[in-house]
Amino acid sequence: MQRITGRLGGLAYGGDYNPEQWDEEVWKEDDLLMRQARVNLATVGVFSWALLEPEEGRFDFGWLDAQLDRLHANGVAVDLATPTASPPPWFTLAHPEAMPVTADGTRLTHGSRDTYCLASPAYRRAALRIAAALAERYASHPAVAMWHIHNEYATVCWCEQSAAAFRSWLRAKYGTLDALNESWGTAFWSQRYGSWEQITPPRATQWHHNPGHTLDFRRFWSDEALAAYREQRDAIRAHSALPVTTNLMLPGYQVLDLWKFGREVDFVGIDHYPDAPGIDAAADTAFGADRARSFGGGKPWLLIEQGPSTVYTSDRTLGKQPGDMLRHSLGHIARGSEGALFFQWRQSRAGAELWHSAVVPHAGADTRIFREAAALGETVARLGELAGSTVRAQAAVLHDADSWWALDTRGLPSAELDYRGSLRRAHRALWDAGVTTDLAHPEDDLSRYRLVVAPALYLLSDAGAASLHRYVEGGGTLLVQYFCGAVDERHHARLGGYPAAPLRTALGIRGEEYRPLAAGETIALSDGSTGTVWSESLRCEGAEPVLSYASGMPAGQPALTRHRFGAGTGWYLSTRLDDSGYTALLARVLDDAGAAPEQAGLPGGVEAVRRHAEDGRSWLFLINHGEQQARLAVGGHDLLTDTPVGPDGLCLPAGGAAVLRTH
Amino acid sequence: MQRITGRLGGLAYGGDYNPEQWDEEVWKEDDLLMRQARVNLATVGVFSWALLEPEEGRFDFGWLDAQLDRLHANGVAVDLATPTASPPPWFTLAHPEAMPVTADGTRLTHGSRDTYCLASPAYRRAALRIAAALAERYASHPAVAMWHIHNEYATVCWCEQSAAAFRSWLRAKYGTLDALNESWGTAFWSQRYGSWEQITPPRATQWHHNPGHTLDFRRFWSDEALAAYREQRDAIRAHSALPVTTNLMLPGYQVLDLWKFGREVDFVGIDHYPDAPGIDAAADTAFGADRARSFGGGKPWLLIEQGPSTVYTSDRTLGKQPGDMLRHSLGHIARGSEGALFFQWRQSRAGAELWHSAVVPHAGADTRIFREAAALGETVARLGELAGSTVRAQAAVLHDADSWWALDTRGLPSAELDYRGSLRRAHRALWDAGVTTDLAHPEDDLSRYRLVVAPALYLLSDAGAASLHRYVEGGGTLLVQYFCGAVDERHHARLGGYPAAPLRTALGIRGEEYRPLAAGETIALSDGSTGTVWSESLRCEGAEPVLSYASGMPAGQPALTRHRFGAGTGWYLSTRLDDSGYTALLARVLDDAGAAPEQAGLPGGVEAVRRHAEDGRSWLFLINHGEQQARLAVGGHDLLTDTPVGPDGLCLPAGGAAVLRTH
Amino acid sequence: MQRITGRLGGLAYGGDYNPEQWDEEVWKEDDLLMRQARVNLATVGVFSWALLEPEEGRFDFGWLDAQLDRLHANGVAVDLATPTASPPPWFTLAHPEAMPVTADGTRLTHGSRDTYCLASPAYRRAALRIAAALAERYASHPAVAMWHIHNEYATVCWCEQSAAAFRSWLRAKYGTLDALNESWGTAFWSQRYGSWEQITPPRATQWHHNPGHTLDFRRFWSDEALAAYREQRDAIRAHSALPVTTNLMLPGYQVLDLWKFGREVDFVGIDHYPDAPGIDAAADTAFGADRARSFGGGKPWLLIEQGPSTVYTSDRTLGKQPGDMLRHSLGHIARGSEGALFFQWRQSRAGAELWHSAVVPHAGADTRIFREAAALGETVARLGELAGSTVRAQAAVLHDADSWWALDTRGLPSAELDYRGSLRRAHRALWDAGVTTDLAHPEDDLSRYRLVVAPALYLLSDAGAASLHRYVEGGGTLLVQYFCGAVDERHHARLGGYPAAPLRTALGIRGEEYRPLAAGETIALSDGSTGTVWSESLRCEGAEPVLSYASGMPAGQPALTRHRFGAGTGWYLSTRLDDSGYTALLARVLDDAGAAPEQAGLPGGVEAVRRHAEDGRSWLFLINHGEQQARLAVGGHDLLTDTPVGPDGLCLPAGGAAVLRTH
Repeated sequence: MQRITGRLGGLAYGGDYNPEQWDEEVWKEDDLLMRQARVNLATVGVFSWALLEPEEGRFDFGWLDAQLDRLHANGVAVDLATPTASPPPWFTLAHPEAMPVTADGTRLTHGSRDTYCLASPAYRRAALRIAAALAERYASHPAVAMWHIHNEYATVCWCEQSAAAFRSWLRAKYGTLDALNESWGTAFWSQRYGSWEQITPPRATQWHHNPGHTLDFRRFWSDEALAAYREQRDAIRAHSALPVTTNLMLPGYQVLDLWKFGREVDFVGIDHYPDAPGIDAAADTAFGADRARSFGGGKPWLLIEQGPSTVYTSDRTLGKQPGDMLRHSLGHIARGSEGALFFQWRQSRAGAELWHSAVVPHAGADTRIFREAAALGETVARLGELAGSTVRAQAAVLHDADSWWALDTRGLPSAELDYRGSLRRAHRALWDAGVTTDLAHPEDDLSRYRLVVAPALYLLSDAGAASLHRYVEGGGTLLVQYFCGAVDERHHARLGGYPAAPLRTALGIRGEEYRPLAAGETIALSDGSTGTVWSESLRCEGAEPVLSYASGMPAGQPALTRHRFGAGTGWYLSTRLDDSGYTALLARVLDDAGAAPEQAGLPGGVEAVRRHAEDGRSWLFLINHGEQQARLAVGGHDLLTDTPVGPDGLCLPAGGAAVLRTH
Repeated sequence: MQRITGRLGGLAYGGDYNPEQWDEEVWKEDDLLMRQARVNLATVGVFSWALLEPEEGRFDFGWLDAQLDRLHANGVAVDLATPTASPPPWFTLAHPEAMPVTADGTRLTHGSRDTYCLASPAYRRAALRIAAALAERYASHPAVAMWHIHNEYATVCWCEQSAAAFRSWLRAKYGTLDALNESWGTAFWSQRYGSWEQITPPRATQWHHNPGHTLDFRRFWSDEALAAYREQRDAIRAHSALPVTTNLMLPGYQVLDLWKFGREVDFVGIDHYPDAPGIDAAADTAFGADRARSFGGGKPWLLIEQGPSTVYTSDRTLGKQPGDMLRHSLGHIARGSEGALFFQWRQSRAGAELWHSAVVPHAGADTRIFREAAALGETVARLGELAGSTVRAQAAVLHDADSWWALDTRGLPSAELDYRGSLRRAHRALWDAGVTTDLAHPEDDLSRYRLVVAPALYLLSDAGAASLHRYVEGGGTLLVQYFCGAVDERHHARLGGYPAAPLRTALGIRGEEYRPLAAGETIALSDGSTGTVWSESLRCEGAEPVLSYASGMPAGQPALTRHRFGAGTGWYLSTRLDDSGYTALLARVLDDAGAAPEQAGLPGGVEAVRRHAEDGRSWLFLINHGEQQARLAVGGHDLLTDTPVGPDGLCLPAGGAAVLRTH
Repeated sequence: MQRITGRLGGLAYGGDYNPEQWDEEVWKEDDLLMRQARVNLATVGVFSWALLEPEEGRFDFGWLDAQLDRLHANGVAVDLATPTASPPPWFTLAHPEAMPVTADGTRLTHGSRDTYCLASPAYRRAALRIAAALAERYASHPAVAMWHIHNEYATVCWCEQSAAAFRSWLRAKYGTLDALNESWGTAFWSQRYGSWEQITPPRATQWHHNPGHTLDFRRFWSDEALAAYREQRDAIRAHSALPVTTNLMLPGYQVLDLWKFGREVDFVGIDHYPDAPGIDAAADTAFGADRARSFGGGKPWLLIEQGPSTVYTSDRTLGKQPGDMLRHSLGHIARGSEGALFFQWRQSRAGAELWHSAVVPHAGADTRIFREAAALGETVARLGELAGSTVRAQAAVLHDADSWWALDTRGLPSAELDYRGSLRRAHRALWDAGVTTDLAHPEDDLSRYRLVVAPALYLLSDAGAASLHRYVEGGGTLLVQYFCGAVDERHHARLGGYPAAPLRTALGIRGEEYRPLAAGETIALSDGSTGTVWSESLRCEGAEPVLSYASGMPAGQPALTRHRFGAGTGWYLSTRLDDSGYTALLARVLDDAGAAPEQAGLPGGVEAVRRHAEDGRSWLFLINHGEQQARLAVGGHDLLTDTPVGPDGLCLPAGGAAVLRTH
């Protein structure tokens, strides 16, 4: 990332630019408006395959040459994308077998985007060809600053080519059919496989699938996408030394193991679209940014897409409030992003996303939206000095794609188990408490964190359970939530009591029985708080019961336990606490952990995060999401206004923000 | 239609008659009961293909000869149907490729009705053959009074034959692929088509379809159905000079552009089934009847099907109240129908619609239902003198199939946009106000209307926008509702501000940003009324703000505007007003327009509509849908009782009706 | 069943045992724990096909020999299952045409269980081969006590092989196409079949299916499953004289006509999983047990599967309360089960049902669950003396698979008609009243019952209507509920008035019109009670109106009628009464019938049922489902405590139970 910010002379600002949808008159206006908005980086080519290769094997680069030249002349660097997420219609006719097939056998066709089977040799060859051709032609173009492979990898396919690739993956993983049969537990329901050919993707069948089968299919598919990424990356590296990444889609996308992707990209790039307006969007921005930073190992990363003026909810787009564009962008930068890019520069007038918001909306530049975007460009330009600085977290929330995938299995005790929701809730409680938080993998060395929270960690490998045991023993504070470690990496239940054995010791408990609650059911706890969704029959084996069940279970049965173990403390929560109960619990656990907020004494709704440079400088980001002006006892030099904070501290208006340089 | 009423000596009364489901004993009872109920028109043959052509190419007309002879002898004229909506089982085996295919590739099969691909040459040949054979044989049968082609055209198909026909349609429309690519905006998402063969129906794909693609597919499909209709019509005309029509299904059916059908039928025939009981059914009857009249250019039309005793709601049939049969039939006749027909005469004892209501129910003639139907036959017979008279509307609600289709696109800003509901609501408000209303197309000459309302007119062609501009300039009063004219006929967004440019001038506003509201969200307006579903950032450019937003938006932002323009007035409403607010708005707008109710001073629930003869006579229909007796200051001669209204006016009991002849 | 209880020396206790999922160490613990829990019967082999026949035609019985020997040595008899519900993966590759196809054409594949077309010759051959091989090898193994064919027959298929078998079944039923066309009413919608080849299963089509077609397809499918069962049964009988049965799945499964199965099994075996916790589970246990006994003609039967510790609701499993395991098991035994078996002995650690509860849970034997199961084994052992005794019912609720299937047809007047719910409600009201109840078929000789209730009997054959007529005439009390006998066995509507003619006479009414109520609509009745879902226009023709409608219908229209007819009484209820109204009605009807509870004067929540031996002994089961201790004025010797009840009667604690032997 430093190569890019170095070249740009500061943070990146801009977004996806699709000039092929417009004509010369518009390009001229684009040049002018980009200068007005201080745009310095444009993502080009994401949807250009059909123009770049109008027939199989015949390339037409002329128009792209001209666009890159024009952008360069205007001082805009280019994030050049390979267009492989959208094969042109000719591809379908030439390679019908490369179209994806759903689990129930429907073969999809073109007419949208992302319609291909990633495991299809014909698709992979075609993708590699166009990527290599772009790399060869533009490696030395002065506009190009970085490479952007594909777009939001997400398509899954159940076709015969996927089956063949899945079998290869399984052979490589298991070696023998016996090992596979043992791992999947095929003795149940008479599923023993007698030859590799008998194995298919988990296609439509009569009842539930085997959960080992479905889990491995998700792992395979993530690895297949990663292989497709690496293939393009390596082809580009053969021509270019510029950084290569892809834009990972964060909210809800469940196809990829992002820890693995984080290790293969030169820096992490994400697309982030909150799914609720207001303070929830701010909290989700923090969650997304913390994930992006964590997947990249704490290194600087880049927000590649965000929506300028809308939030996507389930069935409609809601407007962002004035100032949200600034607050969300600063929210990302505060947590390590080296800039703020948008999808897209100019709102499409046609096509499937004509209502997706843009920096230059349909109504044109004489709009609030463009004026805010232009002001934000000025703001981002003032933050150049913090490029390369990093963020330090005291707490971590555990994330494991395996656990997410495993929880997404039919036949679990409750349909109300919600992986992503549980992680968001834990992260949100820490965000509300002002504590900067990483995401971490259970098998990571966790000793650098004062506090680790494990929500929805249904699947926990043996190594993960040992890691958590070590963490507590070594002095960490660990909060484990219900239904954790119930199964191992094969999706085999833990025997002899829950959760996974070495962790059980650290927590000082033994779970005997899971007892999901009915939809809407509430269970009372001994301090007056309540639980929903879940309950458990637990025994304390060393732990002290902190809260017990007061209804629904035999009286006195522990609900929340705390165990001093080694140099640390292990907490176990066996139900879904109500909001105030959960907030109070986090406060206690943070206290146990000795973890402090980034900035003490802040009024509610004011977010504070700090970026640190190696030379000892740091920058405190303060964002007032509340509806009241806030007077803060802080000092430093505010980069946004280029003025020092006076002796009375900083007065942050409702919706306002500051970035204070301190030493 | 005059040829038919002339021949019948008055209005038509009767319904679908399927004697092939019964035996001779029942036929004898039918003869008797039809005379009792004064039935004079029966629709025959709709479901008779399998009997008429028991094997491909072998016809058996004997039984139909006998039925027509019998009906004729009994004084019942015949609306003879081509049976092409229900190909027999042999057709499937002979022409499997003519079975329809869903968007996800499921090929349907027989076992129901309407299972065919209209674009299949084999189907079209078979349909033409049976239609021509019927026409040839029965053109001069004395019973036959008119031709009824097919039944409720509605099947859509995504098969290869549909694809071929779609491509031909596209070639004819666009001429070149470049024009098509430009129109669909295929530069987005790399969808550029390089050959016509690459184009398919919008089949199952990974994400959203291209909205230009889906819109053209709907247009194509409506045109294909119309072509199938015209083919049969022309074949019949080769043998017969009798009027030809089809029964258009109104509620909810969205497959056809009914303006186009209205131009190709000799008169409009509709099937009308309300979807709610009580006053809502009465209002929907008016809406259906006004549409039927409008699609036929104001000429007399015919209610071909209604249900005698039930209303279809989403998951059940509710009983009509005693008297509804009369009130609904008069409701249609008042608005231009030349009679009242039912589906069906005798309730089927078997088959998929054995629970569909009928004039002679399962329980037989000794029932309230049949007694009401017989009395209604007497009533209709008394109305013969008004055959050929017409209805005059002061207001129009704009309807455009393109807009309905375009609003039914994934990826729009809100899933709560409801084309049909918006039109019904506008029509209902005018119905409640007692103002007779047409439906009109935006490109029509609207100058004959005092008021035009444009709800849900998302898609508005350039010509339509110019037409609305002219209408206001020329003195009309126009009420445009939110998200109007956002896209042009290609489904391209309007640039530079909403709505479409020439209309924007007439309204004196410029819309900058659409801001859908969350599900259930309510936004306050300056007069205490509220909005839901939608809001907009508007600027007044000449218009006066009548209401402004009081929450959710920057204070003072206009919500409802009014603009004196040329000789007329343009109103713009940017949210979905609550019921009382909408009623109040309509009252103000009607006042601006100088539009008056058909009959002033009526109590709530009393509907009044007038039919006019060319000779100056007119008939005022009065229907009391309320639960109170109403005393009305009207005069004339009541056809229903054949008595003059006395000096004290008319006393209409709850549920009662009168048809007053005046000069 | 006597051969089994004779051999076991008492009632059966145990469950499904799948040792192939475990290793030798676990087997040793199983031996020990089975002895602790007094297990005497284990179901083995249900999911063992892939192990028993690892390749087509190659058998490997060695491991099963060893397991049976071990069980035998440990004193556990074996219910040996044919594994035909779960063909191994090799079967799919060898016989792709035997995989089932859904109505919309999706071909399913292996990866779950029950994935086969029962009508496929290849499947039937394979199933017969493994069943015969097992029978031949194990007929004389000393462990084997009975045979268990297949598992929960439920798969339905719409493939070509299913079509061929369906056609054969139709030819056998109808003889001629004319008869079929007449029965299905194919004159409607032009569906007349001209050759047998034109007939297919009711596959995906454009609108509703023909209801005669769908009804026959369900009948065919039940018969096809029965044929598959009989084929295996006969093959086993060729080698073994031991009893043969299958485990019928009760709750919700709608594929089989269980009256027919009851006549072909040596005794009825059921799987029973309640779908709600608490008192509802107890009532559903009684409903399931009464059905099982009735399907077997009153003979002893066997509970083959129940869940030890969980209840399955729509989207989650809820925990049973402590003691439920005992109460539910006694609930079944009280109503004729000769034992209590579980699915399964040891909770699977892997596979699709790893979260299904078991006698030995994941947490092991040191758990409440296993301790309760072991205590229950002791309890069951104390009940040996009542083996072979039977239950006597005073009331019957009518059940007919035809009616269930017919009510599950699209296009009925209301989607809120609920066959199973209506039967459960009628049974529950009688259970609450303490009256022991059978299920009965309408065509049965019903004269042995004091009261017969007919809820949801939409389809009623001519013979059934005559049977009900005879029943009332002969002195019975009959309560018929709305929409009864509306159609005959062909799904043809009854003409001339509802319900079916001979029954109409017995009830003294004539129904003219069905009037479903809107969702959530409530209609008032003359005594202050209310109706929902449904109403009817009725005339009394001999009956006295007991309740009339007070809203929604013309005033005074009868809602509930009573008719003294012959020596009996016929009641007709035309709406769905509210709970207290329905309870009050049942009390009146029971009073008319002279039916008394099994044990008078019991407090609410205490269930009482009696088993009778031929020698005059009887055993009164008392189960306190309430939350209060109950003192009961009963006498006898309590088998559970082996103590006589004292002069003060029995004190039953909350949740407690007793089994009192009396003479």
